Amino acid sequence: MRQVNLGMIGGGTVGSGVFHALQVNGDLLASRIGVKVAVRKVAVKALDEPRPYEIPASYLTTDWQRVVSDPQVDILTELVGGTTLARTMTMAALKLGKPVITANKALLSAHGEALFAAARRYGANLYYEASVCAGIPIIKSLREAFVGNRITHLYGIVNGTCNYILTRMKLAGVDFATALQEAQAHGYAEAEPSLDIDGHDALHKVGILASLAHGFWVNPKDIYVEGLRAITPTDIQFATQLGYTIKLLGIIKTGAGGRRTEGRGQQRKNGARIQVSVYPTLIPNTHVLASVNDVFNAVFVRGDIVGDTLFYGRGAGKDATASAVLGDLADAALDLKFGTQHRVPPFVPHERDGAVAPIAEVRSRYFVRLKVEDVPGTLARIARIFGDARIGISSVIQPAGHQGASVPLILMLHDAPNGAVSQALKRIGQLPVVKAAPVMIRVEDFD
Amino acid sequence: MRQVNLGMIGGGTVGSGVFHALQVNGDLLASRIGVKVAVRKVAVKALDEPRPYEIPASYLTTDWQRVVSDPQVDILTELVGGTTLARTMTMAALKLGKPVITANKALLSAHGEALFAAARRYGANLYYEASVCAGIPIIKSLREAFVGNRITHLYGIVNGTCNYILTRMKLAGVDFATALQEAQAHGYAEAEPSLDIDGHDALHKVGILASLAHGFWVNPKDIYVEGLRAITPTDIQFATQLGYTIKLLGIIKTGAGGRRTEGRGQQRKNGARIQVSVYPTLIPNTHVLASVNDVFNAVFVRGDIVGDTLFYGRGAGKDATASAVLGDLADAALDLKFGTQHRVPPFVPHERDGAVAPIAEVRSRYFVRLKVEDVPGTLARIARIFGDARIGISSVIQPAGHQGASVPLILMLHDAPNGAVSQALKRIGQLPVVKAAPVMIRVEDFD
Repeated sequence: MRQVNLGMIGGGTVGSGVFHALQVNGDLLASRIGVKVAVRKVAVKALDEPRPYEIPASYLTTDWQRVVSDPQVDILTELVGGTTLARTMTMAALKLGKPVITANKALLSAHGEALFAAARRYGANLYYEASVCAGIPIIKSLREAFVGNRITHLYGIVNGTCNYILTRMKLAGVDFATALQEAQAHGYAEAEPSLDIDGHDALHKVGILASLAHGFWVNPKDIYVEGLRAITPTDIQFATQLGYTIKLLGIIKTGAGGRRTEGRGQQRKNGARIQVSVYPTLIPNTHVLASVNDVFNAVFVRGDIVGDTLFYGRGAGKDATASAVLGDLADAALDLKFGTQHRVPPFVPHERDGAVAPIAEVRSRYFVRLKVEDVPGTLARIARIFGDARIGISSVIQPAGHQGASVPLILMLHDAPNGAVSQALKRIGQLPVVKAAPVMIRVEDFD
Repeated sequence: MRQVNLGMIGGGTVGSGVFHALQVNGDLLASRIGVKVAVRKVAVKALDEPRPYEIPASYLTTDWQRVVSDPQVDILTELVGGTTLARTMTMAALKLGKPVITANKALLSAHGEALFAAARRYGANLYYEASVCAGIPIIKSLREAFVGNRITHLYGIVNGTCNYILTRMKLAGVDFATALQEAQAHGYAEAEPSLDIDGHDALHKVGILASLAHGFWVNPKDIYVEGLRAITPTDIQFATQLGYTIKLLGIIKTGAGGRRTEGRGQQRKNGARIQVSVYPTLIPNTHVLASVNDVFNAVFVRGDIVGDTLFYGRGAGKDATASAVLGDLADAALDLKFGTQHRVPPFVPHERDGAVAPIAEVRSRYFVRLKVEDVPGTLARIARIFGDARIGISSVIQPAGHQGASVPLILMLHDAPNGAVSQALKRIGQLPVVKAAPVMIRVEDFD
C-alpha cells in the first residue's frame, strides 16, 4: 500500500486531536482510501507543553522549518493559529509544492488570495474544511455536492460560543455577562472573548463561505458585523413573546439591494450584489435553526436546484476539528497518489463582477427596543419619524408593570433598507422623550 | 475548455430535471469545474411522453443502446428506475469503460455487488449520490468527509412519503388512511404505495448507508423492516402525551447484540455485529429529528471523532435529485479529465467480518398498546408475563373515558432484547382478557 508521510506544525488542541485520531483510526482510514498516512514529525512551540492528547517525545521537534523541508514529508498540517507565522509556514510548504491542510479561518480571511495564488504557482493545494464549522462538511458540500446550484441563501450559526451564550440567556434566563462567565467556565470562551462575541470569528467563516458560494473572494472589510454585547434579557423575553429566537446569524443572500449595473459596453459590470453579514437576528421559533442550541453550529443552504438543506454538528473542539482534518488528509493523500493536486483547487473565481451590497442598502424587518418617558404623545412622536421615512410599524408592545420615569417600548418594523432605519433611529434617539440609544435587532423570515 | 459528452438514459421526472438543471446552470458548473458538460442524446421509452420539463425533440431517441455505444458519449446517466432493464443498461455502459451515474436505490440494493465488480473489471466507475435522500450529500459525506471516523450510530428519516403521513397524523390528527390519501393527492405517494409505506424504499437506502459506513455489503434480506400500517391515532396521541414523536427511522448502530466471536486461530471471526433496521420509532420530542416534518428527509450521523451531526433536505423530487446527479456529474467529469476513474471507487470493502445482528438480539425500549377487558386483575396478569421474561415496565397508562367491554392499555418497557419482548407479547396476546393482537413500537433514546 502506498504511504504518504505527514509533517504536522502545531501539536496543541487541534494538532494533538489529529495525532490522536490517526492513532485510533489510521488503519481504518488506510483500508478505506488505499493509502497509509504516517506521521513523521510534529513541530511544537515547546516540547513540554501540556496537551489534551499525549504525543510521544520521539515525534516532537521545535524546528518547524525542518519539518516543512524534510524531503520525506509529503503533506503538512498547519494547526498553530494566528496569521503571521502561520502564513510564513504555509507559504514555505506551498513553495516546495507540498499540499497544506489548515484549520485556520483567520489566516484564510487575511491572506486567502495570496495563499491560493501561491498554491497555483507552485503546483500545490490548500485544504481547509476544518476552518469553517469544524466537523460539518460544509466546504466539501458547497464546492462539490452543490456545484450545480446557485446558492441563493445561506444562513449560518457558525460560532459555538455565541450560540451557547444565547441559548443560556433564553433557556436559563441569565443575562449576557453571566452567560459569558458560564461559557468561560466551560472552556467555550476565551478569557479575552472579543474574537467570538463581537462576531469576528463568525465573520472569517462567513467570508470563506460567501467566497465559495459566489465565486469572488469576499474582502472581510466588506462584511458588516455586529456582536452580542447589546443583547439584553429584555430583548430575549420580548422576542420569545413575539414567537422568535435570537441567534447570531451569518447571512449570505442574493438579491440584496438590487443588481449592480455600472459602466457600459465591454466594461459593463452586471454582477449580482449579495448581502454578506453577521449580526444577532430574530428568527421564527418554527424555523429549524431556532432549535440549534448550546455550542452546536448549523448552516442552512438554499440552492436554486436542491432547495432547502441544513448541516448540523459541533463547530469546534479538538475531535470535531480533527475529523475535518482527516477528511482533507484523505483528499490530499488521494490527490498525491493519483497526481491530481489541482482536481479541486482551493478557490475558483467564477463571478468576476460580484460585489457585496453595503449594509445601508440591505433590506430586512426589524425589532426595535426603546427606553422612553411614560407620557402621552410619546408613541405619536416616534411613529411620525418612521412615517416620514416611509417605514411601516407592524406592532407595538408597551409592557405593563414597569414603574418610574422611563419604560421600555418594543416596535416591530416592516421591511425597509438598513440605511433608512438607522437614520430614523438616530432622529428618534434625539427626541427628549427617548432616554437611551435605541437598540435595533434585524428579523429574518427566510422567504 | 475540456468538454465531456453526456448520454442520458431516462427522460422522465428525474431525467428531465437533470436536463433542465444543465440548461439553467450548465455554464456555472463549467466555470466552477473547468469542464463543459454537453448533453448528446436522451434515450426515452416514447418520444411523445409528457415530461415535467421539456426536452427538445432533437435530443430524444428511443434507442438506448445507441446512446450507450455512441463513441462520442463519455458519461451516462441511468434514470429509468426498476432493476432489470436498468441493470442491463448500466452493465452495458460499464463494460465499455464508461462511468455511470444512477439515482436507482433499488438497482443498487439488488445488484450493487455485481455492478461494483463490473466497474472495477472494466475500469469504469459508478456514482450514486442521488440514490439516497436525493439532494442531501450523505454518500459523499460518509465516504469522503467522515472517512476518518467509525460511524457508531446512524439514524435516518429517509422516506418523504412516510414522513409526510406521520407529520399529518401528528399535526392534523388524521388517521393513517386519510394521511395516505392526502399524500397521494399531493403526488407524494404512488397509487400503489406499498414500496414507501411498508418501508422497502427506506430499506434500500439504509442498506446502502450501512454498507458504506461499515465496509461490508449488507444483504437487504438481513435488514429488518416494519412499515407504517399498524400506526393509529391512538399511538400518536399517547406518544405525544409521553413526550415522543413517531418517525419511520432507519437505524444503523454498532454494539447491537454484542460482538460476534466465532471459530479459532486464523479463522477466528471477530467482526462487529451491527443493527440495520427500518421501523416506526418513538423518539423524544427534544431530539432534532423530531422536528423534521412533511416530506423532508434527515440523516443523523454519530462518528467516533466528529460526534453528532445532522444532514437535512428534500429527499425526493425532480430538482433535489437533479442536484445530486449534477454533483456526481462534476466528480465524473473531473475523474475523466484527470484520468482517475478509481479515485473514490463505488464501494470499498474494509470490514471482512462484519455482520448484521438478527433483530431478536437487538435491544431497545418499547411502547406497547393493548386492547384489554376492563376487569380487575388484567394488569397483574400482563405484568406477570413481562416479569417472568425479566422485562421491566417503566410506566402504564390506562386512559380514562373509554367505555365498553375493552379499553386501551399503554405500557412503556425498559431496555430488553426484541426476541424476548416478541415472545412475551405473544403470550400476552393469548390471554383471554386481551382482545386484539398487541401492538409494539420501539423507542429510541439516542444514547
